[in-house]
Amino acid sequence: MIQKLISAIQRTDAPIVVGLDPKLSMIPDRIKNRSFEEFGQTPEGAADALWQFNKELIDNIYDVIPAVKPQIAMYEQLGIEGLIAFKKTVDYCHDKGLIVIGDIKRGDIGSTSESYAIGHLGSVTIGSNKYSGFNEDFATVNPYLGSDGVKPFIDVCNSEDKGIFVLVKTSNPSSGEFQDRLIDGKPLYEHVGAKVEEWGMGSMEGDYSNVGAVVGATYPEMGAKLRSIMPHAFILVPGYGAQGGKGSDLKGFFNKDGLGAIVNSSRGIIAAWQNEKYSKFGDNVGEAARQAVFDMKEDINGAIR
Amino acid sequence: MIQKLISAIQRTDAPIVVGLDPKLSMIPDRIKNRSFEEFGQTPEGAADALWQFNKELIDNIYDVIPAVKPQIAMYEQLGIEGLIAFKKTVDYCHDKGLIVIGDIKRGDIGSTSESYAIGHLGSVTIGSNKYSGFNEDFATVNPYLGSDGVKPFIDVCNSEDKGIFVLVKTSNPSSGEFQDRLIDGKPLYEHVGAKVEEWGMGSMEGDYSNVGAVVGATYPEMGAKLRSIMPHAFILVPGYGAQGGKGSDLKGFFNKDGLGAIVNSSRGIIAAWQNEKYSKFGDNVGEAARQAVFDMKEDINGAIR
Repeated sequence: MIQKLISAIQRTDAPIVVGLDPKLSMIPDRIKNRSFEEFGQTPEGAADALWQFNKELIDNIYDVIPAVKPQIAMYEQLGIEGLIAFKKTVDYCHDKGLIVIGDIKRGDIGSTSESYAIGHLGSVTIGSNKYSGFNEDFATVNPYLGSDGVKPFIDVCNSEDKGIFVLVKTSNPSSGEFQDRLIDGKPLYEHVGAKVEEWGMGSMEGDYSNVGAVVGATYPEMGAKLRSIMPHAFILVPGYGAQGGKGSDLKGFFNKDGLGAIVNSSRGIIAAWQNEKYSKFGDNVGEAARQAVFDMKEDINGAIR
Repeated sequence: MIQKLISAIQRTDAPIVVGLDPKLSMIPDRIKNRSFEEFGQTPEGAADALWQFNKELIDNIYDVIPAVKPQIAMYEQLGIEGLIAFKKTVDYCHDKGLIVIGDIKRGDIGSTSESYAIGHLGSVTIGSNKYSGFNEDFATVNPYLGSDGVKPFIDVCNSEDKGIFVLVKTSNPSSGEFQDRLIDGKPLYEHVGAKVEEWGMGSMEGDYSNVGAVVGATYPEMGAKLRSIMPHAFILVPGYGAQGGKGSDLKGFFNKDGLGAIVNSSRGIIAAWQNEKYSKFGDNVGEAARQAVFDMKEDINGAIR
């Protein structure tokens, strides 16, 4: 799967993933009103608004980006109806040829991690038929439980040609509370990074592994260090834009081949229409998002080349 | 919420939680066949079998236990249909007066953690109405992202009278890979435990906090140490039974008041009917589970008193 992601990045010349993390406050009234008229001011109505908003975005940017990253929490907060909108979004992105990174941050012990892996990346066998639950292409995974929490995901990646990104150094202000603590003279995130590289050896495709890492754009020096610790891991980089990461921070996340990282922006793209800079687009969320993608691409490609 | 859990433990004299983590292989043919006849060999059929199995269990044990702990991964692997069965199970347990610990192991940054907290413990406001997504009473939370990943859960706990159990030392074999690494002379899990105690200070109810901890029965010495580091945290103890933890391992997890811990058993109770020891019950899953609860209660109360 990592080579599919690399091909898509090369085809679009955009090491960019758009985070589909919609909140109702980002959705224009014209979309919300239509959904609430049809389904009422209910979880079904709110979930329909998320889905219609996503669809409008995807229709306008699918040809210029390689991948999307829906954050499942934004859907899960609406319960079942929200998760139906999540699934519709995943399927629609696939129809449009996009790679889907499910930002699910799951992680548990052995057979329980296996169930998450099956639900999000694999398929469950019932009788003589196979059914996939959510069918993302990649999933984000939390490493706190160690190898036997992560390996079931890798097994599913290997059997179904999928991939994962393991949380190594997250973009949030308090990520250092545990992740930066020194163990044998090195921060915990470096130990986790070394494990990511080791886990990835069992799932190589060309120069890269299907086991990637999450490292926040907000910590550029740590990103550069982790790049050297995990030469075969693709890095998913959150924290660009609204969280404070800039293009100039990102060079160290990439390898000399110009690959090795994909940078996420959520609010900066999907809520671009609410940004003064893109006010000329009015509430045309798709056109504003498309321009924001072009601007982000220029910022990042300018910085890493 | 922690005082509601304590009252329920005292009423039933059972510091026990039953893990509702069903697999199809644990479900008698008579239940599976009925579900598959009605809904086909589909995710809907499989999810109905999980739900019917849970219902039969709950009907037979609800009066002798304080709480259940459905593991959401077992449902999530069936996609939307599985999550509908999860929600039905939560609601049915509430109807029967049980406290529900959602074993969801979520955790993300700031506003995303808030979305998970809202979806599982709180409610979302749409227009002038409030809707709850999954409505568990407690949720398990992963601490890897630090305070700003955990605090949004605590805020929801405080506003909605709910609780959490933060992963501190998990029961699986490789949990030590990161959790046991020494930082300033103390293992990481002790640092996380100290944070749990600190986080809990903002959510006290009597002697205990709504911020509890997960510590595996498979590590009894670490449990005793963590008990002293987190005097106000209730400990949710997985790993009893099938994973190897015994009643005699558990004394150190409890405080002198006889409280402070609740021990989970999943397979040992819900699949008791498949255990030679309970073969006299045939495929009466409920009667076998009820006897297994009594046996577990005797084992644990005998050890901690």
